[in-house]
Amino acid sequence: MKRIAFIGLLFLGFQVTAQSVQSPSKQITLNFSLSKNGNPTYEVSYKNKPIVLNSRLGVKLKSGGDLTADFSIDSVRQRTINETWKPVLGEQSNIKDNYNELTIALSQKTTGRRINIIFKAFDEGVAFRYDFPKQAKLDYFIISDEMSEFNLTGDHKTFWIPGDFDSQEYAYNETKLSEINTEKIDLNNGIGLKSIAGKHVIQSPLMMKSTDGLYLNIFEAAVVNYPIMHLDLVPNEFKLKSRLVPNAIGDKAYLQAPCVSPWRTIMISDDARDIVSSKMILNLNEPSKIEDTSWIKPMKYVGVWWEMHVGKSTWDYAGSQNAQNAADGQLKPTGKHGATTENTKRYIDFAAKNGFDGVLVEGWNVGWEDWFGNWKEDVFDFTTPYPDFDLKAVNDYAKSKGIKMIMHHETSGSVANYERHLDRALELMKKYGYPAAKSGYVGRIIPRGEFHDGQTLVNHFNFVARRFADYKLMVNSHESSRPTGYSRTYPNYIAAEAARGTEFNGWSNGNPPMHETILPFTRLLGGPMDYTPGIFEIKMNHYDPKKTEQVHTTLAKQLALYVTMYSPLQMAADLPENYDRYSDAFQFIKDVAVDWQDSKYLEAEPGDYLTVARKDKHSEKWFLGAITDENARRTKVSLAFLTPGKKYRAIIYQDGKKAHWQNNPKSYEIIAKTVTYKDFIQLNMAAGGGTAISFEPIN
Amino acid sequence: MKRIAFIGLLFLGFQVTAQSVQSPSKQITLNFSLSKNGNPTYEVSYKNKPIVLNSRLGVKLKSGGDLTADFSIDSVRQRTINETWKPVLGEQSNIKDNYNELTIALSQKTTGRRINIIFKAFDEGVAFRYDFPKQAKLDYFIISDEMSEFNLTGDHKTFWIPGDFDSQEYAYNETKLSEINTEKIDLNNGIGLKSIAGKHVIQSPLMMKSTDGLYLNIFEAAVVNYPIMHLDLVPNEFKLKSRLVPNAIGDKAYLQAPCVSPWRTIMISDDARDIVSSKMILNLNEPSKIEDTSWIKPMKYVGVWWEMHVGKSTWDYAGSQNAQNAADGQLKPTGKHGATTENTKRYIDFAAKNGFDGVLVEGWNVGWEDWFGNWKEDVFDFTTPYPDFDLKAVNDYAKSKGIKMIMHHETSGSVANYERHLDRALELMKKYGYPAAKSGYVGRIIPRGEFHDGQTLVNHFNFVARRFADYKLMVNSHESSRPTGYSRTYPNYIAAEAARGTEFNGWSNGNPPMHETILPFTRLLGGPMDYTPGIFEIKMNHYDPKKTEQVHTTLAKQLALYVTMYSPLQMAADLPENYDRYSDAFQFIKDVAVDWQDSKYLEAEPGDYLTVARKDKHSEKWFLGAITDENARRTKVSLAFLTPGKKYRAIIYQDGKKAHWQNNPKSYEIIAKTVTYKDFIQLNMAAGGGTAISFEPIN
Repeated sequence: MKRIAFIGLLFLGFQVTAQSVQSPSKQITLNFSLSKNGNPTYEVSYKNKPIVLNSRLGVKLKSGGDLTADFSIDSVRQRTINETWKPVLGEQSNIKDNYNELTIALSQKTTGRRINIIFKAFDEGVAFRYDFPKQAKLDYFIISDEMSEFNLTGDHKTFWIPGDFDSQEYAYNETKLSEINTEKIDLNNGIGLKSIAGKHVIQSPLMMKSTDGLYLNIFEAAVVNYPIMHLDLVPNEFKLKSRLVPNAIGDKAYLQAPCVSPWRTIMISDDARDIVSSKMILNLNEPSKIEDTSWIKPMKYVGVWWEMHVGKSTWDYAGSQNAQNAADGQLKPTGKHGATTENTKRYIDFAAKNGFDGVLVEGWNVGWEDWFGNWKEDVFDFTTPYPDFDLKAVNDYAKSKGIKMIMHHETSGSVANYERHLDRALELMKKYGYPAAKSGYVGRIIPRGEFHDGQTLVNHFNFVARRFADYKLMVNSHESSRPTGYSRTYPNYIAAEAARGTEFNGWSNGNPPMHETILPFTRLLGGPMDYTPGIFEIKMNHYDPKKTEQVHTTLAKQLALYVTMYSPLQMAADLPENYDRYSDAFQFIKDVAVDWQDSKYLEAEPGDYLTVARKDKHSEKWFLGAITDENARRTKVSLAFLTPGKKYRAIIYQDGKKAHWQNNPKSYEIIAKTVTYKDFIQLNMAAGGGTAISFEPIN
Repeated sequence: MKRIAFIGLLFLGFQVTAQSVQSPSKQITLNFSLSKNGNPTYEVSYKNKPIVLNSRLGVKLKSGGDLTADFSIDSVRQRTINETWKPVLGEQSNIKDNYNELTIALSQKTTGRRINIIFKAFDEGVAFRYDFPKQAKLDYFIISDEMSEFNLTGDHKTFWIPGDFDSQEYAYNETKLSEINTEKIDLNNGIGLKSIAGKHVIQSPLMMKSTDGLYLNIFEAAVVNYPIMHLDLVPNEFKLKSRLVPNAIGDKAYLQAPCVSPWRTIMISDDARDIVSSKMILNLNEPSKIEDTSWIKPMKYVGVWWEMHVGKSTWDYAGSQNAQNAADGQLKPTGKHGATTENTKRYIDFAAKNGFDGVLVEGWNVGWEDWFGNWKEDVFDFTTPYPDFDLKAVNDYAKSKGIKMIMHHETSGSVANYERHLDRALELMKKYGYPAAKSGYVGRIIPRGEFHDGQTLVNHFNFVARRFADYKLMVNSHESSRPTGYSRTYPNYIAAEAARGTEFNGWSNGNPPMHETILPFTRLLGGPMDYTPGIFEIKMNHYDPKKTEQVHTTLAKQLALYVTMYSPLQMAADLPENYDRYSDAFQFIKDVAVDWQDSKYLEAEPGDYLTVARKDKHSEKWFLGAITDENARRTKVSLAFLTPGKKYRAIIYQDGKKAHWQNNPKSYEIIAKTVTYKDFIQLNMAAGGGTAISFEPIN
């Protein structure tokens, strides 16, 4: 279904300097205007309340003069789009894309150069981008700065992480806009590589709440051939400005007209559920460029991974991080290597027994002795296994059990080296039948001077997705720049990490209980996250009495995360032996779907709680996940999402009565009951707790 | 044959601060000493005359303290090497490697860090390198500067080109050391991209002549995982210092101990022929790492190339450099495209008729509309031909005629893009049977901020050679960093340009007549050059009456260059129709060998003249080339190099009596005579002229 209504195309023979566009609901209005000097500006209101005050637009160029002023309006075009599309994998099988669009065609009076600014008004927010049309006077150009401003109206509450060009793996800070200061937070939180951009530079998506109860979110969509946008704040004026990530020599973006910038997005609602359920970011991306998507499949997997994080085994084969021995080629096994043929077979057996799709193995390939923190270029070749990992035997065994192996490509940040080897790496995957790979980018980037969030790296991550697609392979990137909806265009880019994941709980001060209530309002807006939940042995002293680290949730909340943290790729991250000890709780992970027909966000408050129900794409089963922050929470939710006339067997996995994330995290109880769409269910969540429910039709 | 004599290994229990080593001939002496502050220094003398005065050694590190002072000597080792080895391709079938070696093991008193300085004294010069042994106190490190000095004794005559991190395609300047100034020369000489390092920075190899008639040459060998070394001059003190090419963020080299620096070389002789015939640079490189070298073969070739330089046809298919049309995908042929199937077949026919091995075709692949000067990343994919170039038909036709096609990989400086596509490009070559490729690096480097001469690019060129070797393919790089003997280690790196080649004569002020008398003393010391000689239509007004450009030699000198400019890859660069008009002179190009059993440098004076005789590797034929600069030259050379007892039919291709490079360049005469080793031949060379002679045994 595609409906496009052209409202009008206006060529202006007289001096018009203002235009506006409204959301289909008419609750959001965006006004565009040119200042006296011909500066393009915009402002946004919601239900007649100002949201974004008059804010400048435009870009500065490295040479040839800026595109920020001296403009007049050549033409104005409005149109309405109302269509739906079907994602290959997703939270729902149909996505509505409905907006009013305003295109302002501008030309610079003295130079004659032209740009278009395109605005889209959706019911849940607005978006704009710069469009550089084909023209003789603008061919190749270099963006030195983007001037897009977001001038806010008050001292909103924010959930922010520092503007770091190399990492988003931070825990969120909950402060007022005026209190944002990257120098006043603890940066010693397990992040090895930091490139902090400044005292008042923060990352997007930036989730906010105004004192009068409005939810705001500033982000971007369709970052293709452009750097990631961070945000510069003038704290006491509540002004934000685009801060593009530079390259090795300080330039921002190398472009050639015709081309477009990413979309800058501002979501607005008085109901937080509108933000968390929005598909605006996906809608602003291009449709799938892969024609045959039949090979793109969701996956639930286990893997040789958490056992390294908890110190039970190692990625490397020959003594942890003894670089010079590795340089000598003296690989003497320590006996602690995790990725052995034998250990992998144990995971394959476990996966097969429990109905998983895949097994990930990290540390299978030569290079781990010397991989981290050295800014080393030739770390891995992505094709040579350690002597104790028999590629063929492992894959033959997996095949005999109906299990797919998931390849692992750690690059150590050496992108140059990875690109050099990529075709060979993918050919190896095809040879053995791997359907997907997890990639990693721990460490300083090579080409040296580049950042994880710069245009070079954005292009790399997108290139890798396309190259994987050439081979009909899926990819899940870790430590990449955070996604902005490119998985719509390349749905084989099945997931990414690009935020603070579960692993930090293993060896740092970890992820505070509110962490997972914020991610759906921030990181997850850009695409699925491989959060790797499912940790049952919450406390690391299970492995070593001296350890004090722990996961900051209850066990029940770990189950709920499979529903609240949407991803078509979900790991059951804990060790097989741990799941065997809690097989009743493990049943939920075995049962839960990973691809969805529909999703209903029942309750949402960033930093506090989230409750969502999702219907399996391929059955009538529903699953519900509810999580809370550090505060216990009792709530009653309606089951009206269930199909009328059907009875369901609900299995409720909830915190034990005395459960608490810190002192008693493994206390849970499982209750079965029969329910219909008319029922309500009482959810009782412990501090740092959650509830997971499966609903199976029984008639 | 390998003879190694250990002269001694001395562990020092007492304070020794000076050591020396002599060349096998004992004419060169190198003295090493530590200053009072523990600075390592050296000095060099030749026949008891000082050549290099006390000069500092050492490197500065980005962190952890410099390796320049505070040293004491731990041990001293001397040994003698006298061996011969057989190059796969070369100027001679056996190369002698004979030197005395001195290794000074140093440790820093306060840090305990260790370095070794290794000196080699050959009969034609000395070399030294830094050796960083495996040690706990020095693992990964970053070199921020190299302090190697070359403090000379007087105001020598020099042949220099400016220190440019991106290009060596300059004509040489002949001035005294004290007169070197890059701001006083014409830099508008056809070079598109310049990164001039400073007023007094020049390139190596630096060829010099002292007022008392000594020939000196400063260069380097075995540049592997290290940047190219340029030279900083203090003009009035005659002091030179290593100037390493930086990377995008100003660092010089990223290393991990154990490792070594390249060799720094100082050649010295009172006979210029000792410099030009020296194999010191090759000897300082590692032996071939390719075991089976049977597929590495010399090649004489023609190609679709010069016709683009003279403006007869174009590389691009769709309108010269109309970038935005190309971006639209609107490829409309102009009718001037050179690389058509039909035109290629014409060259194949010509190559087959005249006994050539190969045909190069430039402009065969999509991307040339938009390739140059834009710092564009995704220029070429190296696999997609233009619609009028039928890869299969061309290669089938070539095969049917016994001709090998030579692939062309222009990267436009976008190294990142080339590496991304390299495996696919090489697989395409294997599919169609291409044995070799010419690569090109015109334009600013991507990764942006890197230079052609930095460590990143050195590593790239060496990586490409290794990757080609994986596929048993040969490579000939243009616009690469200048070679330093790596073709010994990877003999499939068959040639490089990396200096001002013939093409500059087509569209710039060209190469002055002395140019080819200097290159053998400079660029060619590092390895074979694809100079693309053989231009018969000397003046560009042949193609367009308005053109004033011309080759700055006579036609006869063009023939002589096939002997004076050693390369196992030699192009007959002019158009087939031009050769057809001068088929008697063309006979020399058809006859001349490209791989040699022996070479005898008969006369040599940098900037003035060169005469060399070479014996074909696979027959008893000899060939002689003699060239002069802008001055006419008459000389009598002995044929004593010929085999006693044999008679030879000598065919002499010489300048006509009134020939002159500028006014009458195409005047030549061909004389046949019978000669023996007892004879002398009178060579009469016009201004900018030369003589080529073939000697075929007739008994």
